[in-house]
Amino acid sequence: MAPQKESGTDFMKLATLSNGSRYGELVVVSRDLSRYVSARDVAKTMRDAIDDWSSVEAGLQALSEKINGDASVGEAFDVQKAMAPLPNPSQWADGSAYVNHVELVRKARGAELPASFWEDPLMYMGAPDAMLGAHDDVEVGSESWGIDMEAEIGVICDDLKMGLSPEEAADKIKLIVLLNDVSYRALIPGELAKGFGFFQSKGATAFAPVAITPDELGENWQDGKVHRDMLVHYNGDAFGKANAGVDMTFNFPKIVSHAAKTRHVAAGAIIGSGTVSNKDADGTPGKPVRDGGLGYSCIAEIRMIETIESGKPTTEFMKFGDQVRIEMLNDDGSSIFGAIDQQIVETK
Amino acid sequence: MAPQKESGTDFMKLATLSNGSRYGELVVVSRDLSRYVSARDVAKTMRDAIDDWSSVEAGLQALSEKINGDASVGEAFDVQKAMAPLPNPSQWADGSAYVNHVELVRKARGAELPASFWEDPLMYMGAPDAMLGAHDDVEVGSESWGIDMEAEIGVICDDLKMGLSPEEAADKIKLIVLLNDVSYRALIPGELAKGFGFFQSKGATAFAPVAITPDELGENWQDGKVHRDMLVHYNGDAFGKANAGVDMTFNFPKIVSHAAKTRHVAAGAIIGSGTVSNKDADGTPGKPVRDGGLGYSCIAEIRMIETIESGKPTTEFMKFGDQVRIEMLNDDGSSIFGAIDQQIVETK
Repeated sequence: MAPQKESGTDFMKLATLSNGSRYGELVVVSRDLSRYVSARDVAKTMRDAIDDWSSVEAGLQALSEKINGDASVGEAFDVQKAMAPLPNPSQWADGSAYVNHVELVRKARGAELPASFWEDPLMYMGAPDAMLGAHDDVEVGSESWGIDMEAEIGVICDDLKMGLSPEEAADKIKLIVLLNDVSYRALIPGELAKGFGFFQSKGATAFAPVAITPDELGENWQDGKVHRDMLVHYNGDAFGKANAGVDMTFNFPKIVSHAAKTRHVAAGAIIGSGTVSNKDADGTPGKPVRDGGLGYSCIAEIRMIETIESGKPTTEFMKFGDQVRIEMLNDDGSSIFGAIDQQIVETK
Repeated sequence: MAPQKESGTDFMKLATLSNGSRYGELVVVSRDLSRYVSARDVAKTMRDAIDDWSSVEAGLQALSEKINGDASVGEAFDVQKAMAPLPNPSQWADGSAYVNHVELVRKARGAELPASFWEDPLMYMGAPDAMLGAHDDVEVGSESWGIDMEAEIGVICDDLKMGLSPEEAADKIKLIVLLNDVSYRALIPGELAKGFGFFQSKGATAFAPVAITPDELGENWQDGKVHRDMLVHYNGDAFGKANAGVDMTFNFPKIVSHAAKTRHVAAGAIIGSGTVSNKDADGTPGKPVRDGGLGYSCIAEIRMIETIESGKPTTEFMKFGDQVRIEMLNDDGSSIFGAIDQQIVETK
């Protein structure tokens, strides 16, 4: 069952439906993702809502109670029309909170992980424009770029004052999203060698259809982490089911605080967790799902493990026509955010 | 004299005035920066305008012709009320087009410049939220961060299709801005060692009061470069006067094209030039203005030259209370963008 409503909370699922404009129309979606009502009388777009959250929250919640209280309210929610819930964040910053993943990257190239990596979050600044909806194609110039998915959780924040503490940051997390941080692995080494971080090596980021308030997760939102499995299917096969609450070295309040250390951050920033990654129960790097392991949230990780074990990777990166599906389910099998379900296509 | 109006061009200066909202009010400013008229009937904000440039351009130009054709039109333009011309760009990406500057950085630490740096632009992704107006204080947590200015030119672009050529990119440059890419030098080495680029080592970016159409520069906008001196004053003293059109290895069309190599970029991106930097006439690193040289657009550069010449830097980074003024003038001494004039203050 999905968590039950308690008084004083603001259970909500929000989406942005395509309406021909750049930023779409904000809608409130029923908890089972079957229906929606427009939020236009409260806030026209998600950015309008997050820019003025304290004023609009009650109005959005009233719509949420209305649609969840009466199955006859609203229209059918078509995930094909869902844009990214917040198509135009004020900022897109992505952490690497699962240090297990970072350690594997290093190990695969024979490098030690600096001890500071367990204390000081890695974070890169991403491009916040042109965010993709859950079913949008991933347009790529060439298969030689080394196309990869990265299944992640992100949080949408209210205004962040420069230097705020993790405790203060916790209160600024208003919504949670599920995302695919498309990466071009073959372009990364050259860019990292230049020293200025990722740029061309990141594609447009894609988002599951709905953003949710943290209380939608009930007890699975704890210690600033999402304690649910990140289900990744690659070309229809189960590829990953790491638990996003496990092996997360830095929780969301910590990485949000990191993002605002030297700058005020405007409302509407999306701060990402980095690729979800678990060790296996015996402490060894994760086995594939088909071998009884928890699998992977990106292809790079299985390639690293192959490299560590046999000297070279055998799994290839994604090709045109490949499909990736990323989802997170409640205990009853209902989808929490809706699914990301994208195809890799050659750009025209 | 400022360049004269020709038919078929769209000479315009645009600004955003604070009105209590996050994104302010778009206004059209007279070419001498003395007066403004509201653009609210054409586009409420700069982002609205750049999101729909082809539709609003004529309306804005009509306002520009009106205010420039009749000195009795408009109200007094108060630069103190100017926000960043585009306070919420879709993306903020900053190149390092003046490879002279990059070469000095390397030389100061005894490293060779890779040959590829002359062919492939360096570019980092910056935070596009919470942009500062020309007179906003630079709020800093600690002087120990190594506070520095970086005087740069930036361009505001229309939608950029993934993979567009430099030639195609040239047509997408709609507006030009002057900016201060505030940097925290003491935080850079640690972040670059982590390999994910700048994050906490960059402060909020500040912008001169008006954005201009390229034709405002007349013949000084040539080959995709701004051929005017970048005038930097530090605590009232002349500090830099490098020509932004000289020693720019990659012109704007080239760096805009680089920014869109692997992703579509939404309208409203600001793409920066990196710190303007000239060699001296004899090919040696620039001398200070007081010694008859062209000086510097950031403190790091004079420190590098001091390091190369005497083994260690002697000029200190900025302190609380320090003032930086950045401006670009026409031949007649009139200000093209208005001045950035900021004080460094300790954040509260």
